[in-house]
Amino acid sequence: MSNQHTYRAEKVVQRIEQLATITEERGCVTRRFGTPAFIEGAALVKEWMDQAGLQTKIDSIGNVRGRWQSNHSGAKTLVIASHIDTVVNAGKYDGPLGVIMAIDLIEQIKSKNISLPFSIEIIAFSDEEGVRFHTTFLGSQVITGSFNHEWLQKKDADGISMQEVIEGFGKNGTTLAQDAIPPNEWLGYFEMHIEQGPILYDKNIPVAIVLSIAGQKRIAVTLNGMAGHAGTVPMDKRSDALTAAAECILKIENYAIQQKESLVATVGTLQIPHSAGNVIPGEVHFTIDIRSGDKNFLNEATSSIHSICNEVVTKRNITIQWQLVQETDPVATDKNLKHLLRKAITESDIPVVELVSGAGHDAVPVARIAPIAMMFIRCFKGISHNPLELAAPEDIAQALKVADAFMENLIDHYSSFS
Amino acid sequence: MSNQHTYRAEKVVQRIEQLATITEERGCVTRRFGTPAFIEGAALVKEWMDQAGLQTKIDSIGNVRGRWQSNHSGAKTLVIASHIDTVVNAGKYDGPLGVIMAIDLIEQIKSKNISLPFSIEIIAFSDEEGVRFHTTFLGSQVITGSFNHEWLQKKDADGISMQEVIEGFGKNGTTLAQDAIPPNEWLGYFEMHIEQGPILYDKNIPVAIVLSIAGQKRIAVTLNGMAGHAGTVPMDKRSDALTAAAECILKIENYAIQQKESLVATVGTLQIPHSAGNVIPGEVHFTIDIRSGDKNFLNEATSSIHSICNEVVTKRNITIQWQLVQETDPVATDKNLKHLLRKAITESDIPVVELVSGAGHDAVPVARIAPIAMMFIRCFKGISHNPLELAAPEDIAQALKVADAFMENLIDHYSSFS
Repeated sequence: MSNQHTYRAEKVVQRIEQLATITEERGCVTRRFGTPAFIEGAALVKEWMDQAGLQTKIDSIGNVRGRWQSNHSGAKTLVIASHIDTVVNAGKYDGPLGVIMAIDLIEQIKSKNISLPFSIEIIAFSDEEGVRFHTTFLGSQVITGSFNHEWLQKKDADGISMQEVIEGFGKNGTTLAQDAIPPNEWLGYFEMHIEQGPILYDKNIPVAIVLSIAGQKRIAVTLNGMAGHAGTVPMDKRSDALTAAAECILKIENYAIQQKESLVATVGTLQIPHSAGNVIPGEVHFTIDIRSGDKNFLNEATSSIHSICNEVVTKRNITIQWQLVQETDPVATDKNLKHLLRKAITESDIPVVELVSGAGHDAVPVARIAPIAMMFIRCFKGISHNPLELAAPEDIAQALKVADAFMENLIDHYSSFS
Repeated sequence: MSNQHTYRAEKVVQRIEQLATITEERGCVTRRFGTPAFIEGAALVKEWMDQAGLQTKIDSIGNVRGRWQSNHSGAKTLVIASHIDTVVNAGKYDGPLGVIMAIDLIEQIKSKNISLPFSIEIIAFSDEEGVRFHTTFLGSQVITGSFNHEWLQKKDADGISMQEVIEGFGKNGTTLAQDAIPPNEWLGYFEMHIEQGPILYDKNIPVAIVLSIAGQKRIAVTLNGMAGHAGTVPMDKRSDALTAAAECILKIENYAIQQKESLVATVGTLQIPHSAGNVIPGEVHFTIDIRSGDKNFLNEATSSIHSICNEVVTKRNITIQWQLVQETDPVATDKNLKHLLRKAITESDIPVVELVSGAGHDAVPVARIAPIAMMFIRCFKGISHNPLELAAPEDIAQALKVADAFMENLIDHYSSFS
């Protein structure tokens, strides 16, 4: 690793640490959309963008935007972005790493005094995690013009509406549409983000190309059997909704393990209403989260898991309600951008790893209107959404080297066209 | 069935209905220990005992007691009892049926003008369910001298202590010891109660002899794995505490089904702290309730279930905490009393069914100091602790006939000794 990249990675880490001190609650990192900590964090990121010589603004949804306008007539815009909101008691790297690396990347290119064949806009999205309003991608949906204005009436846990939150940081819900980048102006989208999974850590490789972002189905299941006295109902007279749920959960796990190359499936929540230690559970609610990078297989797997659950409950004299509560299709990254990123990784002497992202990212809404590319950076043991979340400075340095090469490849590519 | 027993059963049902109208909340039956509804219900039961010509009182713990003193010198006391407190949104029969049938039984014997070789005391226990203070058997523990005076400081959900509740109905915690019936004064104990299970309903038989009351172990289990992102952690890299719990639950069920003649085992509660649909559960809490009429087998089964859980978690790289939080030994009913009850059932032309009670009853603390007998009465589909709880008038009539015969057998038996 060159001294230059090591030095730049150290600066990125310093900024990561500085931003992490801005939090709703001392002792942990929490910056939910629109909170005072969020507003203070956005101001700091804007300051860094100002220092990088970008034309900066905070838009109506709270995105921090820094623009470097190309002199070429009709130049399109490359957006380099990630988010700066966090979950509650978050890590420091999920989101901020991509934003802070992007600023460093631009400072690097600016120092070379080149003529840019496209404009670059760095965006620190204001709400990717969706913790406060149970929405995701608020920032990137404004940028892509897919924001639903009805969401302004949504209320947080304290009864404060999204409209009021936006007014709280001095903006106005009525101007949101003006903040979109029209589809014909996009050159493409590039996001750098920690992997949030263990594959790079296990392979001992610093970065990966994202092939696609997995599609997802979220199902809410309710099983109804017959509650009863734990002491008086013999084992063979029971309709226990929990043992039925347990059999479903095990069979879902087993099915997903069989298909582990292309699928993950998770039962994340389970509730037994009015439960007591001495009562046979009569009703159980649980959720199933199913993800795959392949749309057809996602549909097929969801259907198979539904059949598996139906078989279990029929055998046990239990009724089932199966409700699809959320679904998103898988999103592929752009072939040309991926080619340039793959080239950059090879030029940096790093083995090429290609991953499906199991997590959603701001690239998902962007992919509807523009070509996207994503690079993952290894994180310690795959841990994320946790104070232990960590990207090593050596890996950040490697990632900066790859990103430099990617930007050179892109500039070369589009300069040859102009 | 004789007209006499049918008529008496109708009167019992009328009183059941009348008592059920006295409730904390309109539209359901709820009379927790010491509440205004409880106090009003106790006064009504005392009135019925007065009408039956018994010497009545309400003791320091709120038990309603009606005594018929024998003229024989040194006569011991037969206690016939059940409870009049209820769970929240209870049925009408669990408890009150035994008390109201006992009053009817005594009225019947009194009308025969016989010389009683033992005294009889009917007791309507004030707290069997333990809903308010998370205790059980308060009433019967006072009667048997096993009440722990530290419990007086326990507080209910509203912060009211048991001492204050007792003072609220005009009694005093300091006189509780005086309300015990000394061990040497007991002839025995007889309780009539709905089965609260489906066996008599399935066998189509109105009553059963209780062989024993099952012993019970209550275990609190905590499993710890590793929380993770539901999208990014591959299936073969997970330490999912919920799928581990599911495998434990299924294997516990399977073990109990294999041993169904002598065991029930129930996982009644399960919680996932901080759960979310898109997070792999890192921690799961659940409880296991294990019951058997055979003490050695109960110990053996508990140990087997512990081993089963240990095997599951070891294989899955999950840690387990296993905490025994409650245990009671099985309690056998008295051989002689059981013989007299069996004789009464046969004399009533009813097939003899002998059951282990999976539910606890006031007979449990009494069994430590006196011989006990219990008769179960069939309930509709085994449903209990539920507004649908029902004992059919025909079955109550049959049970009264058996109880008459049992009392005759007892009186004959002890008259021949005196």
